[in-house]
Amino acid sequence: MAQALRIGLLGCGTVGTGVARILSEKAQQLARIAGRPLELCRVVVRDPSKSRDGAVPQHLLSTDPGTLCNDPLDVVVEVAGGTGAVRDAVLKCLGAGRDLVTANKALLAEYGPEIFEKARKHGRAIGFEAAVAGGIPIIRVITEGMVANRITAIQGILNGTSNYILSKMTDEGLNYADVLAEAQKLGYAEADPTLDVDGTDAAHKLSILAHLAFGVQPPLESIPRRGIDGIDAVDIRFASELGYTIRLLAESWNREGKLAMHVSPVLLRKQAPLAQVRGAYNAVALVGDAVEDTLYYGKGAGMLPTASSIVADLVDLAVSRERMVHRTGLLWPVGVSKEPAILPDTDLKSRFYLRLLLPDRPGIMAEVAGILATHRISIASVIQHESTGSPDSRVQMVIMTHEAPTSDFRMAVEEINRRGFAVLPVTHYPVAD
Amino acid sequence: MAQALRIGLLGCGTVGTGVARILSEKAQQLARIAGRPLELCRVVVRDPSKSRDGAVPQHLLSTDPGTLCNDPLDVVVEVAGGTGAVRDAVLKCLGAGRDLVTANKALLAEYGPEIFEKARKHGRAIGFEAAVAGGIPIIRVITEGMVANRITAIQGILNGTSNYILSKMTDEGLNYADVLAEAQKLGYAEADPTLDVDGTDAAHKLSILAHLAFGVQPPLESIPRRGIDGIDAVDIRFASELGYTIRLLAESWNREGKLAMHVSPVLLRKQAPLAQVRGAYNAVALVGDAVEDTLYYGKGAGMLPTASSIVADLVDLAVSRERMVHRTGLLWPVGVSKEPAILPDTDLKSRFYLRLLLPDRPGIMAEVAGILATHRISIASVIQHESTGSPDSRVQMVIMTHEAPTSDFRMAVEEINRRGFAVLPVTHYPVAD
Repeated sequence: MAQALRIGLLGCGTVGTGVARILSEKAQQLARIAGRPLELCRVVVRDPSKSRDGAVPQHLLSTDPGTLCNDPLDVVVEVAGGTGAVRDAVLKCLGAGRDLVTANKALLAEYGPEIFEKARKHGRAIGFEAAVAGGIPIIRVITEGMVANRITAIQGILNGTSNYILSKMTDEGLNYADVLAEAQKLGYAEADPTLDVDGTDAAHKLSILAHLAFGVQPPLESIPRRGIDGIDAVDIRFASELGYTIRLLAESWNREGKLAMHVSPVLLRKQAPLAQVRGAYNAVALVGDAVEDTLYYGKGAGMLPTASSIVADLVDLAVSRERMVHRTGLLWPVGVSKEPAILPDTDLKSRFYLRLLLPDRPGIMAEVAGILATHRISIASVIQHESTGSPDSRVQMVIMTHEAPTSDFRMAVEEINRRGFAVLPVTHYPVAD
Repeated sequence: MAQALRIGLLGCGTVGTGVARILSEKAQQLARIAGRPLELCRVVVRDPSKSRDGAVPQHLLSTDPGTLCNDPLDVVVEVAGGTGAVRDAVLKCLGAGRDLVTANKALLAEYGPEIFEKARKHGRAIGFEAAVAGGIPIIRVITEGMVANRITAIQGILNGTSNYILSKMTDEGLNYADVLAEAQKLGYAEADPTLDVDGTDAAHKLSILAHLAFGVQPPLESIPRRGIDGIDAVDIRFASELGYTIRLLAESWNREGKLAMHVSPVLLRKQAPLAQVRGAYNAVALVGDAVEDTLYYGKGAGMLPTASSIVADLVDLAVSRERMVHRTGLLWPVGVSKEPAILPDTDLKSRFYLRLLLPDRPGIMAEVAGILATHRISIASVIQHESTGSPDSRVQMVIMTHEAPTSDFRMAVEEINRRGFAVLPVTHYPVAD
């Protein structure tokens, strides 16, 4: 049998331990498929005393990232996370002739061009199947399975924490704060969940998918994003009454060569495939001009699902690193990623959901309808339940609009807010159809 | 740029025309990704006078399959279908040093071992992404994306014609014969739809997926199969009343090293992801021990979706045929596929749906319940609507059971049928949970 693929791990938390476990428990299966053994030779960690369930032999541990450049290794698997010291370490490893497999979406979304340029300069390969949608092999689906297509749309549920919280709120009628607290207790949400629940993590992943699908990568700042941190259980209930479910979607469209994209809670019809995605699952819907609608679904995170994707990249490297080097050469080409033509999200058309908390007085419905009409927003349906009838009583009014340009809709919302008759600013979300 | 990948087409019907169109319309995109041009050099057809929408230059056409062996070609794309003359032609092409890309599931399901053995002997590569689930890149998902897993279950909606008919019957309350006639008129069903609607086509595809996922391929005859050709609109309605949808599923499980499999209409909860698969779409759900539940969804047939998968294989060949040769070497190993350990489907446990047409007389429910109890089948729910009350009136009784061994359930059904009190033989389907 051919020479082993010699692997170093940078970081060995949950995912790293999963990689070590699979490499050890499935050594025989992997060697058969790869045509050579996959051998874990070095594991760089901050704290060597931490228990790793016996998945890592003690003599492989080191606290010195320099060993990944100096030991005889073929590939470094980066599962440390973060973008500071890890970026330096990764660049050094590429410079020292190691291929790279990484699960680090923030690193790729922010430093993709620099890292790929370094890899090309040194003839190295980069695998990053695990960086988006955990166990779903979405990177090879786009870069290999769909090569015959012009991809026109991406819709993804890319953040497991947000989806866990939203589906728990929906299925059990709970409110945001309670579900978040429970998710933190169960380990489905970080102690500081900000990057998950404010849409940043989904934007990182969308940025990577958009680069792969459309060939241009928008700067992260250019992706308009709203997270689920402001979601009210009331809106989930009203959406349900109307036949919809709310999901945090990362969406991007190729509109005549211009890229439109956003991360936002969106109302989906309950029967829509993406509306079925519950709990910590991820899903990505892709539309290609040849293949039409496709959808890919699976666990978006977790020890073994993520490790499954990392090991798939390692087997690919073991079988044919030339091919991985070739594909690495096609990605994040310098220059292209700098100035993609971006269609502002205000140019997108959509249906909209809006909810207003209003004083219960005559003429108020006419006032709201009038403002919408002024901005050419046509109303598709309205829900208004009877109020208690007391003098200071308030009513919730929910409106679903027909399709309208986002810019017109936002101006209407601004005018309603400016007029001051609503008790609170209007709550609103796009509706996918 | 490197030398072109020289392609010959065997057959040029709908799918072949799609391949020719993509190769011509996307020549630049494909050459960039593949690192070399993909050039269509020869097209062997039965009738050169047939119109192919201008997708194939006249001078490439030939009626002689021998040209595919004698012309300077790198790869032959077989889209002729069938297993007789095509099998001979494919074996000759492999012998003459051509790689093979094929969309022919019947050929692989029936002659996989022979064809792969021939390829290995001559150091050739075989791509067959298009042979299962059309545009869904399910072959690379299993053989590459999930290499780190032990796959434990496959559930597939693999026949677009059956799924089109079933979802049309469900959504519009129509009966089988009418929907089939309409599907034939629209081109969604063949003039002779037997192999689609009797489950044979789904069994072909399941046989291929089982081989890839479990490493053993059961003889086609060993896959128990029922098609949708006996489906009554009444059962679809009752299933819906109970919260279920009927789909034709091809299922296989790895149970402690033994393979269990069947093709059958199955009741799925309406919220289940596979229950959302409508019309001519396919979907495959795979469970891996590392990645857990995954699902892949897309068009299962059609000119461009199928061509999309074929062209993906061609690009793979152009980028790295060594890798494809390596993977070809792992598949359909001779000997292994002969005698897989098969668990008879009677050993599987499942819930069941059964419908009985009964005379409306006292004690009949007790009689049915008694027989089920004798065979240790526990009843979960019953639907029986009031009869008209006339002396010869009959009632439909629908029973959902708790989980029970298939063998016990079948014996109960046989006893009910043997006793002769039911007006017609019992209708029954498994229920997936």
